[in-house]
Amino acid sequence: MTLQSTMMDFLEEPLPGVGTYEDFNTIDWVREKSRDRDRHREITSRSKESTWALIHSVSDAFSGWLLMLLIGLLAGSLAGLIDISAHWMTDLKEGVCLAGFWFNHEHCCWKSNTTFTDRDKCPEWKSWSQLILGHGEGAFAYILNYFMYVVWALLFSLLAVLLVKGFAPYACGSGIPEIKTILSGFIIRGYLGKWTLIIKTITLVLAVSSGLSLGKEGPLVHVACCCGNILCHLFTKYRKNEAKRREVLSAAAAAGVSVAFGAPIGGVLFSLEEVSYYFPLKTLWRSFFAALVAAFTLRSINPFGNSRLVLFYVEFHMPWHLLELVPFILLGIFGGLWGAFFIRSNIAWCRRRKTTKLGKYPVLEVFVVTAITAILAFPNEYTRMSTSELISELFNDCGILDSSKLCEYVNDFNSTKGDDLPDRAAGPGVYTAMWQLALALIMKVFITIFTFGMKVPSGLFIPSMAVGAIAGRLLGVAMEQLAYYHHDWAIFSGWCSQGADCITPGLYAMVGAAACLGGVTRMTVSLVVIMFELTGGLEYIVPLMAAAMTSKWVADAIGREGIYDAHIRLNGYPFLEAKEEFSHKTLAMDVMRPRRNDPPLTVITQDSMTVEDVETIINETTYSGYPVVVSRESQRLVGFVLRRDLIISVENARKKQDGIVSTSIIYFTDHSPPLPPSSPSMLKLRSILDLSPFTVTDQTPMEIVVDIFRKLGLRQCLVTHNGKLLGIITKKDVLKHIAQLANQDPDSILFN
Amino acid sequence: MTLQSTMMDFLEEPLPGVGTYEDFNTIDWVREKSRDRDRHREITSRSKESTWALIHSVSDAFSGWLLMLLIGLLAGSLAGLIDISAHWMTDLKEGVCLAGFWFNHEHCCWKSNTTFTDRDKCPEWKSWSQLILGHGEGAFAYILNYFMYVVWALLFSLLAVLLVKGFAPYACGSGIPEIKTILSGFIIRGYLGKWTLIIKTITLVLAVSSGLSLGKEGPLVHVACCCGNILCHLFTKYRKNEAKRREVLSAAAAAGVSVAFGAPIGGVLFSLEEVSYYFPLKTLWRSFFAALVAAFTLRSINPFGNSRLVLFYVEFHMPWHLLELVPFILLGIFGGLWGAFFIRSNIAWCRRRKTTKLGKYPVLEVFVVTAITAILAFPNEYTRMSTSELISELFNDCGILDSSKLCEYVNDFNSTKGDDLPDRAAGPGVYTAMWQLALALIMKVFITIFTFGMKVPSGLFIPSMAVGAIAGRLLGVAMEQLAYYHHDWAIFSGWCSQGADCITPGLYAMVGAAACLGGVTRMTVSLVVIMFELTGGLEYIVPLMAAAMTSKWVADAIGREGIYDAHIRLNGYPFLEAKEEFSHKTLAMDVMRPRRNDPPLTVITQDSMTVEDVETIINETTYSGYPVVVSRESQRLVGFVLRRDLIISVENARKKQDGIVSTSIIYFTDHSPPLPPSSPSMLKLRSILDLSPFTVTDQTPMEIVVDIFRKLGLRQCLVTHNGKLLGIITKKDVLKHIAQLANQDPDSILFN
Repeated sequence: MTLQSTMMDFLEEPLPGVGTYEDFNTIDWVREKSRDRDRHREITSRSKESTWALIHSVSDAFSGWLLMLLIGLLAGSLAGLIDISAHWMTDLKEGVCLAGFWFNHEHCCWKSNTTFTDRDKCPEWKSWSQLILGHGEGAFAYILNYFMYVVWALLFSLLAVLLVKGFAPYACGSGIPEIKTILSGFIIRGYLGKWTLIIKTITLVLAVSSGLSLGKEGPLVHVACCCGNILCHLFTKYRKNEAKRREVLSAAAAAGVSVAFGAPIGGVLFSLEEVSYYFPLKTLWRSFFAALVAAFTLRSINPFGNSRLVLFYVEFHMPWHLLELVPFILLGIFGGLWGAFFIRSNIAWCRRRKTTKLGKYPVLEVFVVTAITAILAFPNEYTRMSTSELISELFNDCGILDSSKLCEYVNDFNSTKGDDLPDRAAGPGVYTAMWQLALALIMKVFITIFTFGMKVPSGLFIPSMAVGAIAGRLLGVAMEQLAYYHHDWAIFSGWCSQGADCITPGLYAMVGAAACLGGVTRMTVSLVVIMFELTGGLEYIVPLMAAAMTSKWVADAIGREGIYDAHIRLNGYPFLEAKEEFSHKTLAMDVMRPRRNDPPLTVITQDSMTVEDVETIINETTYSGYPVVVSRESQRLVGFVLRRDLIISVENARKKQDGIVSTSIIYFTDHSPPLPPSSPSMLKLRSILDLSPFTVTDQTPMEIVVDIFRKLGLRQCLVTHNGKLLGIITKKDVLKHIAQLANQDPDSILFN
Repeated sequence: MTLQSTMMDFLEEPLPGVGTYEDFNTIDWVREKSRDRDRHREITSRSKESTWALIHSVSDAFSGWLLMLLIGLLAGSLAGLIDISAHWMTDLKEGVCLAGFWFNHEHCCWKSNTTFTDRDKCPEWKSWSQLILGHGEGAFAYILNYFMYVVWALLFSLLAVLLVKGFAPYACGSGIPEIKTILSGFIIRGYLGKWTLIIKTITLVLAVSSGLSLGKEGPLVHVACCCGNILCHLFTKYRKNEAKRREVLSAAAAAGVSVAFGAPIGGVLFSLEEVSYYFPLKTLWRSFFAALVAAFTLRSINPFGNSRLVLFYVEFHMPWHLLELVPFILLGIFGGLWGAFFIRSNIAWCRRRKTTKLGKYPVLEVFVVTAITAILAFPNEYTRMSTSELISELFNDCGILDSSKLCEYVNDFNSTKGDDLPDRAAGPGVYTAMWQLALALIMKVFITIFTFGMKVPSGLFIPSMAVGAIAGRLLGVAMEQLAYYHHDWAIFSGWCSQGADCITPGLYAMVGAAACLGGVTRMTVSLVVIMFELTGGLEYIVPLMAAAMTSKWVADAIGREGIYDAHIRLNGYPFLEAKEEFSHKTLAMDVMRPRRNDPPLTVITQDSMTVEDVETIINETTYSGYPVVVSRESQRLVGFVLRRDLIISVENARKKQDGIVSTSIIYFTDHSPPLPPSSPSMLKLRSILDLSPFTVTDQTPMEIVVDIFRKLGLRQCLVTHNGKLLGIITKKDVLKHIAQLANQDPDSILFN
């Protein structure tokens, strides 16, 4: 390449690296969106020139939809794969199928040709004691099964933690706090990469199968976002633009929740309400499409073997009574208290993990927690089964044919008419189940605190729902028995006569689950819609809403942050919460740097600094950008130049451009004055100068500044007074200021 | 009041009128939100002082929820009232109930004790010919009924137009374009007032009953917003703040759609997607609450007499086949074409109404359109019935007991198994119905163009859905017969064998309705969710989505604007569309005023202008605000002062403050210099100066400027170059610029 063409390139094409970001840095939304619009404008204007360009323009317009289709297909397939594998491996802890070791318990018994009494006790399925001892009875068989259960659990969880530690450290946790931060415009390279995807998918199956108190729903969102990010590489439009890529990731998050619960509308609302930062309406429609494709892909794979899209399909027959709102609100209060308690304890524990030696032994930690979980879980039927099975059973309304202990009521067949079962007296099975459930509740409450945050993939939705569902079912059965034995009480009169079916304990479990999930995550509309999609009836929206509302109010009264925001703060990510109003009366001048006694702001002048001067400034300061002014005396602002762009351009000029030496003057002006022939050639850098930096006056209230940062997605903003440049406010300054006003440590904000 | 206290007031309390807006002006979102935060801050800080203040603070926090509850109750009740009245008055056109004239046809026959063969032909219900002639047979009876039908229709519609014209001119139309504009921050006094509410409620019933081709769904949104606006007056928080009030109106719009269709989630999404401008997440949750309360209030009133929440309850039994996507997409194309055609024709007609003499005779216009509609409608069974009944019948899947003409198939009872009806050959009734429906389609298509925009309340949802449902049913029956007679064709092989029920014509009608509604309004997610809530099954989301997507693409390819945006533009409202990307490469300097050859920008200096100078500026210019600068020479910006505030303050000072004369100097500075005793006393106006005006540089791309205007809700923005004030850009300038670039008349933007 000749010098001339290099110079031409230098003038027209941006240098490689100019306009990109470093790891753990915040993107500039305004610049990214401008770049995308430029690209779009160019394609549109070219499309009139040739047929090929027209095809390119059309395919560019439809690439977003194609991408959504691919994300939906991939996320749905992976979710199906995870469901099937986790199901099989969970059953592996109990025994193995002789007809083929790759069948899970249920499939094994479906394949069976022999007749057997109990639905899930077919001769082909052998528990470990049956396989090894030849029989399944007696204390020794019990101990052997117990031992195998614990061994498998430890094996799975250790494999998971070793894989995470060895190959993809980002694969641990739920991933939602980090995804929230990434969507708000932060860069964490590799967090959504292919290794994370592969390892997270495998270890998620292992972690769920190990019987730890965790769920797969949160990690599925991470998996879906990895799919989205990887598939973005197929399309230049999304690969090269950080803002456009985040639109895709928002949609991918929706697809993730959609497959996690089988709730496409709930998924989109979850992405809108909980995860996303910048969510234009175009994204809403595309997210919905992705969520729907993902849900239908999953349904075609049919991992639950029942053609149902949703995880916990329930169908209740009875309407609820207005008076039942009282227990529902009680459940809401319980959910709120549990949420606040969980967040505080979990954050305290995670902080201890970060600051003490504990954090250095993740494998040991996983080993200990798994061992305790497995040892405590096996003796209790309700903790031995997988948590999603447990929730499913708790949500279930007892039919006449249900054989589970929870449905062991004293049947009075005289009063039964058709399908409608009246409230009945609880039999001994129900009372046993109550005790076991109460113990399971206590165990879940405490073990989950230590589980969430370990170095394995771990979601919170399922454990939270389990806690709420147990509490709800307990309350529901209590109410039912109260109504059965005391239907003459005033509160029951009029709606709950003898022999009527007035209380549905399964509904209480569902309401409790919603309340606890709401208390932990502080979701609102998306929570209600997800629960509504699970049941498919508009009837129960009011109880769900009452519980979710109470739970949020109670939890908010104790601590404002949801679990994801708390983890974001714990990790020091620069996340500017869009939900919280900034309510203090500070001004931009209180936040900007330089502070009162600091040295003055480092600025670059537009036409009087040499290459050496600029290099000195770069070396002596660490700011990510510098304002360019007309002159030091006037302090009138011309533009803003980014450190990274400046370094790359100066280095490149030194190498490739003739006559650039330390004494060359750098010009940011449009026209440079004619130079005397003796002086070194000048360096023109107007192309890297941002001529439209955002400015506010020093008297601007910080609430408005925060609003501007949020809504426009700024990295920094310059402060002026009567037209003169005074200082600068960066996103980090804003976050530190907010932390300070909330009596938190401002140094907890780690990144720019 | 002494002079001193007046002066104290003057310094501390804002003058009455300062900070309010004139009619047909745009509000300043930033200022309104700041004011609300100030108010909130004050209440919070006071709450620590006394118990009373604490109660005040808590009640303030919950007033939003209380307001939502009230809106839900009121909107639900009004919707119930409208439904019941419209039902009764629609039947009044046909006859009257002898058991009591206040019963509608259906209720009349329910009350009947005598036995009668046909469900809706009870002896108590008398058609007009039966009442007057004593019998209902023969040509003369038919003509009498025809005559009465037309007379009642004319009576109702004339009453409606006279009421609208006489008492509340804003009660006409659907109201959604205006509500969109109001929500974006425009002020139209009285548009949501109590007179509009009363008259719109009454005239809506009249207009719907008159049989005109219009629906009540859009106007119900207007009615709900009126409720919201009126109830706002109960709470200071919302009464005094234009931004907060708009949050409430967004929620009220959701409640409106919720009762219109019985779809609370769809209502919230409609408000989010279609109507609202500023929609924080807090509003999402509250809107959902309001929508739910409204839906349940309506259900308790039970206007349809079937305990169903939704307008068109359908339950289909058969899944759809993937190949059926082809006809569904065809329906999507039809919907898109109809939408684009309707928008063009309707806008052309409305423009003619605005510009020619036609607009001067609204009563005559309504008379003529009603007469034509009624005369054409009566002979055809499908146009004689109310449009919502028609849609309901078209959506319906023919059961074995259905007696309507549309279900007159040739029954072969040998092949029937239980509830499942196979595809059957169409009987003569079906063929007659097809012809009548085709005629009804043609009539609806044309008459709706002339109906929407007349001086009566008129919604578009129902007529659009009717057009789509007719087209869909026609296609569905055609497909069904094709499958019946040619089940050996390759395309049917494998999924549609003889005697199978493979085509559900009702589903086609539903898909067609969604496609046409989508083509006209360009709704996306909310459309699919509303249709999904109507049917209650996730099964049919994919067909609905395919049709809605195709319809939107086809319609967008012909014309970008939906009907509401087109009407906003027709009326010249200043609405900055948030969905459309601004894609031109202009800069702020191209849009700002003064233009190149204009006189310089009118500015006020901070400490050198007299009262007289300022009054001269006010009288000589009509700008709504003036920048304040340090001095004319430096042009360094200090702040911005609004014309209205300036006029009020100067007038007030002249009247009430001692020593203010024409030569008094106005100071906008913080500290004013000591004056020589002889000079007139000065006027300090710093309190009305906005010290944080938004500024951009002249090199800022307009796409960023548009983004700032949209996201922050600005009225104006100042333009600087190297720290010096250059010009100003107002919202009107931005809108004019956008119109110009889209080759539209920039002078069509009428308001600020």
